[in-house]
Amino acid sequence: MSVPSIAPRRHRVVIIGSGFGGLFAAKHLKRADVDVTLIAKTTHHLFQPLLYQVATGILSVGEIAPATRMILRKQKNAEVLLGDVVGIDLKNKTVTSKLLDWERVTPFDSLIVAAGAQQSYFGNDHFEAFAPGMKTVDDALELRGRILGAFEAAEVTTSQAERQRRLTFVVVGAGPTGVEVVGQIAELAHRTLEGAFRTIDPSEARVILIEAAPAVLPPMGPKLGLKAQRRLEKMGVEVRLNTMVTNVDYMGLTVKEKDGTEHRIDCACKVWSAGVQASPLGRILAEQSDGTECDRAGRVVVEPDLTVKGHPHVFVVGDLMNVPGVPGQAQGAIQGAVYATKQIKADLKSDAPATRQPFKYFDKGSMATISRFNAVCQVGKLEFGGFLAWLAWLGLHLYYLVGSRNRLIAVISWFVTFLGRGRGQMAITERWVFARRAMDQVQERNNTPKAIG
Amino acid sequence: MSVPSIAPRRHRVVIIGSGFGGLFAAKHLKRADVDVTLIAKTTHHLFQPLLYQVATGILSVGEIAPATRMILRKQKNAEVLLGDVVGIDLKNKTVTSKLLDWERVTPFDSLIVAAGAQQSYFGNDHFEAFAPGMKTVDDALELRGRILGAFEAAEVTTSQAERQRRLTFVVVGAGPTGVEVVGQIAELAHRTLEGAFRTIDPSEARVILIEAAPAVLPPMGPKLGLKAQRRLEKMGVEVRLNTMVTNVDYMGLTVKEKDGTEHRIDCACKVWSAGVQASPLGRILAEQSDGTECDRAGRVVVEPDLTVKGHPHVFVVGDLMNVPGVPGQAQGAIQGAVYATKQIKADLKSDAPATRQPFKYFDKGSMATISRFNAVCQVGKLEFGGFLAWLAWLGLHLYYLVGSRNRLIAVISWFVTFLGRGRGQMAITERWVFARRAMDQVQERNNTPKAIG
Repeated sequence: MSVPSIAPRRHRVVIIGSGFGGLFAAKHLKRADVDVTLIAKTTHHLFQPLLYQVATGILSVGEIAPATRMILRKQKNAEVLLGDVVGIDLKNKTVTSKLLDWERVTPFDSLIVAAGAQQSYFGNDHFEAFAPGMKTVDDALELRGRILGAFEAAEVTTSQAERQRRLTFVVVGAGPTGVEVVGQIAELAHRTLEGAFRTIDPSEARVILIEAAPAVLPPMGPKLGLKAQRRLEKMGVEVRLNTMVTNVDYMGLTVKEKDGTEHRIDCACKVWSAGVQASPLGRILAEQSDGTECDRAGRVVVEPDLTVKGHPHVFVVGDLMNVPGVPGQAQGAIQGAVYATKQIKADLKSDAPATRQPFKYFDKGSMATISRFNAVCQVGKLEFGGFLAWLAWLGLHLYYLVGSRNRLIAVISWFVTFLGRGRGQMAITERWVFARRAMDQVQERNNTPKAIG
Repeated sequence: MSVPSIAPRRHRVVIIGSGFGGLFAAKHLKRADVDVTLIAKTTHHLFQPLLYQVATGILSVGEIAPATRMILRKQKNAEVLLGDVVGIDLKNKTVTSKLLDWERVTPFDSLIVAAGAQQSYFGNDHFEAFAPGMKTVDDALELRGRILGAFEAAEVTTSQAERQRRLTFVVVGAGPTGVEVVGQIAELAHRTLEGAFRTIDPSEARVILIEAAPAVLPPMGPKLGLKAQRRLEKMGVEVRLNTMVTNVDYMGLTVKEKDGTEHRIDCACKVWSAGVQASPLGRILAEQSDGTECDRAGRVVVEPDLTVKGHPHVFVVGDLMNVPGVPGQAQGAIQGAVYATKQIKADLKSDAPATRQPFKYFDKGSMATISRFNAVCQVGKLEFGGFLAWLAWLGLHLYYLVGSRNRLIAVISWFVTFLGRGRGQMAITERWVFARRAMDQVQERNNTPKAIG
């Protein structure tokens, strides 16, 4: 049942999404004479850059996913609603959200769409059951089960071939997330799990990083890419560049080298971090605009002021926007959100629509950790790696984590993990078992072989 | 495929379960001349007494569920295997474990069965989808979603009746777990969530505790029970004693007072902590014994030395054993496990089977927290409540938490929660949504009404 809402008394800004874009947009409207409604399909703000640490047992979900409602509790002009936005009506200025049997229509005067992106399999959606991505806390918990569970599965089997398959880990895609997760799998195998098993030697695990491009961390340039690659190789990671994944199934994956030869890699645990697909809300917006289009990844090719054509009050920010030169990272989302709120505030102050300066992205640089005490960092023309870059990573991530409690606990967890070798969050939930069952079902449909024993 | 194992060279003790019984049994065999195989269906040791704090957003899963393998890593005579034990063959002395497509047969010389108990619905298994229990980390994460999600659901509805239903919380069973979880729901409603919503006032939530017996915390005696009840009532909890639950469905539950009158309570979030059902392994053991029986809850009525009749090398400890006067708590499990390991070690030292002194339980007392700074505590004839009891609770639980990191983080979390009002683990996983869908399915089968809007 759709619930009609009462018309807002003040200018109402509706924000879709609670990621960096959505949260910063809400916060930057704190002192504005507007009512803010933030609608998101999770109750938390996800600090996505540290999701790989949840997947590899270092951090708990709570540390990187504080409740959005609690962050905004003291901002009296903001309300937070749980719901999955399924419709936007630009003509009638309403947003329709759903969750289970609740449905709600929320009217807006201005709209900021920060709905983000999901994993993309480039049309091969059947890969997903076997090689999940890492975009949500549930993804991370499932991956934790798959990674740690692979070692457990290797310990119980008596077949040598099957043991080797279970001890082979493949990460597809050498962007920051791929590099970080593959580095942590290598650290688990070589440091954390040392001496924890009786039948297998975890350090005999094969950890493979596959990338279609000719370099690791392609957007960071060849120099840092090579630095990262050398460091990963030193940690025991096999880096396979110029390599495409042509199939993924229960038993492993098929890859194609640049010269056209195809190989099989038998492996149990696969992680997909090779591409993103923007939220379907992008196309919903584009269809109703006066000519705005979406790119192949579903991102909205916005106007210079981040709006959709013909709707100067409808902004698209974050991973859902396509602005040349702006990477799909936290900084782009935050800057886009702050820009959008400034335009809304400026419009409210003038009778006539203000002339807008186009959005300009200020590149603060980018970074990726590779292992403990080691990262690569690029700020403008400055490129550096190693311990110094790792310290920069540490400081920056602590700064952006929400809440002093979360900062303190993250520091303790990192201390324990990087100086010692303990990981406090190795508990596996049942979700991993559900995921295994889903794999079995896909496999049965495809009628392809499955390991036993 | 079943995998034949090689016969053990040394006396092999197989332990089933990684709870207090299983873990302490393994640890107490550290210096014994035996090989230890611990088989459990989770990879963690669960500190069940604090599970309610995971369900109510205070602690993360990792703090109360360290990996069993990591705890025992340095104990060279112990191996840990992940698997769900589905069969025990007392004649051939083997244990069969399964997980997904792995199956394994492990031979034993001595066996310690510490497989614990699950929630019991006293034959009304259809209650479970609507009123889950709290026995596993997955249960706790699901309950976290149901509890916090009920407030979210109340915020989005526009129906006053439905809002009230979503703001009504019922906990069935006033044992320690029931009292602790109901107390924390009241704290969430009255303290933690204050000011976090715009439409609802969380403090208007109805929080109800239902108990069939005439007192709260029945085993702790009338004096402490009354103390706990008064404290709960002061926190805004409605305590309804002498009340039986006769039905549970999507919309709420039906209760029957002592005088036979039946009432409906409309409520969205129900928690079941009214009874336990022992692991099915109990009956498997009893069937193969020379006359050992199970009680109604499926617990094994063991011999005075905690063994099953005719099998002096097969011990049952923890929640699966029925020994008069021993409560189903951590202390009983630990003492039973230590006793069993002592008998095994004594047998190994003598050629003839040693004469065994019967197991004697030493009651160290019991306790339950009610709210921050308030608990009830009973040690022998000594009964006390209030702040002193809470300090005793604090010290004891810190002492038994495994790992200094977990202790430190628990202290920080408690500091933040009890002195401040922050809760660091309010993130909800998708499991809650799956649970809602499961409820919908049961409801459709039963063709009973469901709230909308």
